[in-house]
Amino acid sequence: MARRPRARSGRLVTLTSDVGSAYAAQMKAALIGAGVAPEQVIDLAHDLPAHGLREAAFLLREMARGFPSSTVHVAVVDPGVGGRRAPIVIGTRAGPTLVGPDNGLLIPLAEELGVRASYRIDPARLRRRRPVGTTFEGRDVFAPAAALLVKGTRPSALGPRILPRPYSIPEAARTSAGARGEVLHVDRFGNLVTNVPTGWIGPAVADLRFALGSGRPRSVPWVTRYESLGRGVLGALGSSFGLVEVAVGEGRASDRLRADVGSTVVLAWGPRPAVRGANANSARPRKRR
Amino acid sequence: MARRPRARSGRLVTLTSDVGSAYAAQMKAALIGAGVAPEQVIDLAHDLPAHGLREAAFLLREMARGFPSSTVHVAVVDPGVGGRRAPIVIGTRAGPTLVGPDNGLLIPLAEELGVRASYRIDPARLRRRRPVGTTFEGRDVFAPAAALLVKGTRPSALGPRILPRPYSIPEAARTSAGARGEVLHVDRFGNLVTNVPTGWIGPAVADLRFALGSGRPRSVPWVTRYESLGRGVLGALGSSFGLVEVAVGEGRASDRLRADVGSTVVLAWGPRPAVRGANANSARPRKRR
Amino acid sequence: MARRPRARSGRLVTLTSDVGSAYAAQMKAALIGAGVAPEQVIDLAHDLPAHGLREAAFLLREMARGFPSSTVHVAVVDPGVGGRRAPIVIGTRAGPTLVGPDNGLLIPLAEELGVRASYRIDPARLRRRRPVGTTFEGRDVFAPAAALLVKGTRPSALGPRILPRPYSIPEAARTSAGARGEVLHVDRFGNLVTNVPTGWIGPAVADLRFALGSGRPRSVPWVTRYESLGRGVLGALGSSFGLVEVAVGEGRASDRLRADVGSTVVLAWGPRPAVRGANANSARPRKRR
Repeated sequence: MARRPRARSGRLVTLTSDVGSAYAAQMKAALIGAGVAPEQVIDLAHDLPAHGLREAAFLLREMARGFPSSTVHVAVVDPGVGGRRAPIVIGTRAGPTLVGPDNGLLIPLAEELGVRASYRIDPARLRRRRPVGTTFEGRDVFAPAAALLVKGTRPSALGPRILPRPYSIPEAARTSAGARGEVLHVDRFGNLVTNVPTGWIGPAVADLRFALGSGRPRSVPWVTRYESLGRGVLGALGSSFGLVEVAVGEGRASDRLRADVGSTVVLAWGPRPAVRGANANSARPRKRR
Repeated sequence: MARRPRARSGRLVTLTSDVGSAYAAQMKAALIGAGVAPEQVIDLAHDLPAHGLREAAFLLREMARGFPSSTVHVAVVDPGVGGRRAPIVIGTRAGPTLVGPDNGLLIPLAEELGVRASYRIDPARLRRRRPVGTTFEGRDVFAPAAALLVKGTRPSALGPRILPRPYSIPEAARTSAGARGEVLHVDRFGNLVTNVPTGWIGPAVADLRFALGSGRPRSVPWVTRYESLGRGVLGALGSSFGLVEVAVGEGRASDRLRADVGSTVVLAWGPRPAVRGANANSARPRKRR
Repeated sequence: MARRPRARSGRLVTLTSDVGSAYAAQMKAALIGAGVAPEQVIDLAHDLPAHGLREAAFLLREMARGFPSSTVHVAVVDPGVGGRRAPIVIGTRAGPTLVGPDNGLLIPLAEELGVRASYRIDPARLRRRRPVGTTFEGRDVFAPAAALLVKGTRPSALGPRILPRPYSIPEAARTSAGARGEVLHVDRFGNLVTNVPTGWIGPAVADLRFALGSGRPRSVPWVTRYESLGRGVLGALGSSFGLVEVAVGEGRASDRLRADVGSTVVLAWGPRPAVRGANANSARPRKRR
């Protein structure tokens, strides 16, 4: 992963959360109030599914790609189940620094970037205007920590070393006939992004057999662009994430299939039957959004 | 259209789409990764109605007004029906450069600015980190193209000349009694913005006869501010777009009338009856949002 | 309230509204078109509940905290009931300048910052490209006014002195057994933020009796973090606003209780019963979002 672009206007802070715009604004105010310039603060998304930790961990990793190596990524999605978890900061070998809850949210991105060391943020080491004791760590702990980090404080200065809780994005498994995986993300169009790598499906495949959970398998076209799916036609294609995506032409696959993040997806495929014309799907994949 | 303000911090890139925040963040990351400064990137809207090409073409034209002549406007709304369409860039006589799909989305804005020349973007001429072959042209083609454009690449260097597909925002027609048009935009308040120019309705009008599609005409007040409509009262007024807007006082006209983008609107009007007091609507229009 | 950070890149303009992204983009374009740099413009929220004046007045005050004393806060939430109200600008003793409708929206923030003087904005004193007479004051009056203010125009130069309409965020009342208040804000998670100060509830309290309106009181745990509420358990805790918040573990209190902004909340509390272990809620409050 190349992360070369320089920061023109100082190091950047990205913000990702499920807290909505009003709380996100308070995080931004805390950063600006701590001396971070507005142009250093970049909202990635604040409308992630509420408490959707797994989906957020996946999207954070995808959204954070391309930012300069000096970037501080702050993420806040925290369903609040289970016991106490610490606020943490993770330094990475690729450069970016991650700030957020120790609930797994940061781990897929951290592992992609290569974990260097993680620290539990000690609130006493932050310069904050508000007292400890609120319920909004994004504003009261993560934002002040990020402000210190962009101004040069080292992660190790924020607290004691910690071993973060592990978390892995679920991986699809190969089966004799294809793959078994699950839905990682339902996008705004109701498309189902699975964890099955597009690369597993060979170039000569024209159709997949697809089943949701233990449902009946159905044959669906394996296409290279949304346009190839007629209105209302269920099909599959290689998503922009490099993962198989299940979609309905001009429709919402999530509604049609009543599928959501975590739904099991079973795929099977074989070589393109000779009876089909070679032009049914042109050889070179293209894109469309 | 005056477009004089200078770009302080380099040329600006605006982003407009229906893809939602998570995909939009990836477009932003692609721009920043290509060396565009964060403060050059301006989100206009990413929550436009999914696949709402017509509404988006209208809103893009309205939202893009006022930006410097050096601005690059990137737009991505692409229902994906029909065959292949090219990624294009349009240079305009007024200055701004437009980037997006060749599906009509850019045309109303392009025509307002005056089309100079259009080019099909050749992905081979872009500097990209990701391979060709994904389904997210906004991130993989439009953003890299915009990054080159803001750094001085000329549109003609991005690919061969092309004649974009034509598209026109539907125009209202005069009738003997008034006008026949359609809904161009349903805003967040459920107000129906039609394509009937406000200027068609004279200053002495107090009431309109309004019908949706082939529905029964009803008399509605023609007012100059939302305040003039009592709670739950259906009426019409001159929208901020210079077009007639149908609204319900403190309510949602779209729900009340079950109207949507494309719904036919029939309006008829006459002079203000003498029996009405001159103060019913004060002479000088005022605004309220 | 300390508001010390300097503006690096010129004075900031924050934008808060219920108008949605497409209209907000037009406000931004108007600012940029008037020469304000993009990095000076900060969106706080544009998806506030439509016409939710009371909730917006509360959130604006909360979101505006932390911005530099030179900031211009523009807010547009305007249900449009009642008669004409003026566009106003309020200068404050703490520094920030407020721009918006004279409908109470600005008052809680203005009073926190200390009102110095208020002026009715005279549209004739603005440099605008569009004619007077539209329905979108945010774009046509407030944005041009804010552009002048950030470039040094004094509030008093925008129009004649005015006494703004008063407005107060409803205050909770002490009762013999506890407090009676109301819901000020329903957040994205369905949590109910009331107007009862957290500080009214002593440190030794373990449970509250809670009733919505004239409903039957129920005993709910008074906890210090969301994690302490099991899935589906209704409870209360100190919100990030310093106010009592009613929440459901991993659920939506607003749906469960059918509560909304303005719903009456009755709380009663007593000392922690001796039979409960001291560890039920650890002594020092922590946070979680």
